[in-house]
Amino acid sequence: MFVLEYDGTDFQGWQRQLRSSRTIQGTLEAAISDLIGREIAVTGAGRTDSGVHAQGQVAAAEFDFKYDTSVLRRAVNARLPDDLRVLECDSVSKSFHPRKDAVEKHYRYRVWNGSELPPLIRRFVYHVPVPLVLSPMRQAAVRWLGRHDFKSFETAGSFPATTERTLRSFEIRGRPGQEICFEIRGDGFLRHMIRNMIGTLILIGLGRRPSSEAERVLLARDRSTAGPSAPAKGLVLMSVCYGNLCLLESLA
Amino acid sequence: MFVLEYDGTDFQGWQRQLRSSRTIQGTLEAAISDLIGREIAVTGAGRTDSGVHAQGQVAAAEFDFKYDTSVLRRAVNARLPDDLRVLECDSVSKSFHPRKDAVEKHYRYRVWNGSELPPLIRRFVYHVPVPLVLSPMRQAAVRWLGRHDFKSFETAGSFPATTERTLRSFEIRGRPGQEICFEIRGDGFLRHMIRNMIGTLILIGLGRRPSSEAERVLLARDRSTAGPSAPAKGLVLMSVCYGNLCLLESLA
Repeated sequence: MFVLEYDGTDFQGWQRQLRSSRTIQGTLEAAISDLIGREIAVTGAGRTDSGVHAQGQVAAAEFDFKYDTSVLRRAVNARLPDDLRVLECDSVSKSFHPRKDAVEKHYRYRVWNGSELPPLIRRFVYHVPVPLVLSPMRQAAVRWLGRHDFKSFETAGSFPATTERTLRSFEIRGRPGQEICFEIRGDGFLRHMIRNMIGTLILIGLGRRPSSEAERVLLARDRSTAGPSAPAKGLVLMSVCYGNLCLLESLA
Repeated sequence: MFVLEYDGTDFQGWQRQLRSSRTIQGTLEAAISDLIGREIAVTGAGRTDSGVHAQGQVAAAEFDFKYDTSVLRRAVNARLPDDLRVLECDSVSKSFHPRKDAVEKHYRYRVWNGSELPPLIRRFVYHVPVPLVLSPMRQAAVRWLGRHDFKSFETAGSFPATTERTLRSFEIRGRPGQEICFEIRGDGFLRHMIRNMIGTLILIGLGRRPSSEAERVLLARDRSTAGPSAPAKGLVLMSVCYGNLCLLESLA
């Protein structure tokens, strides 16, 4: 099992595609394959989109390695580009599945709300130069907590068995005119669900929609009622929890 | 007067060089010249080296502009690449000189002390994978406070009138194995002075030199007695103070 951090800017998302695409899964598989001398498949906890970052993505692969896990970590990292790193690795039971066994995921979405986009954070924030009002955004986000059908916030193209998910927490921190940080925890997320929720909240924070829209959009079960998708670059997969263990938060 | 933030990674430092070099001064001059329709020279508070970042560099140029300063800021930014931004601009007296009038500068140096370099901060930290012991580093840094001849920490190539400077504070924050942050304030710094001090402190933190070396190196007035220069990418010019006004800290 690997805990991964990556700067998603120059990757075309998690999922392996054609040979010519630079994906996180493909890059990690190539590094491990090179190390152990045979082709290998890696499974991830979440299929992050193109441009989305991670500080605590979890991945697993099945293979034998005769040295200890810190040797493995260093050997894999020596074969990875500097925008992808194995932070931790550990041996786990063969039955472990990073996605199916995950009980909670924590994502962070960062918005820069100042008039100019600071160069040092430009790859990691969505720039909204008009001041946001946070209280209606908070009132809106609260209405999404709990178990609901989040179909309105799903972008077409994936076909999950159900569009029901449990949203455990949705915090909004920060100050208008500066950085505003969204901390989102839930048992799983539909395709673009977080980015579509953020896009909807931004419209509310700009006063273009009332906070009561949050409930109307949720009940509509129709993507066209929600706001536009916020850009991928503001989103980071922070950690994945398995039972009582939250990787990577437990490492801090 | 402009307050600037830049990601120094892809710049060859502050100072204008040949046409082919991508420098901060040259890029800013080109943007303003394009806006006002004539060649213009820009002066900066500090000549940051290639790879050094800034969150509060101060620059000035003399020209007439008929609209207000927020229009100027936006017009200049529209002509700048996204790794260089004017955060604030203001009109000041003709006699203002960003370097000569500066009474204090605040620099930050960031070290990542974990075993693997996290991709999200890789451009902004110096990676020291062996755990540092902070107490001897702090004992060493304290000996440099005050007015001294810092010749031992000057890299050859510039010819200042004096190598005496006043170091006002040198804080070391953080935890071994994680991020360690150095906050350095003084009335001015010799060429590579901070990077050479950090390089010396790292040797002390690794136990390769005793903390008493700090004083010996200072008194030697000889560059060869100090440690190697720490990499540019860990260094950020945070703010420049004029009298009672500290740009950019006053903006936060």
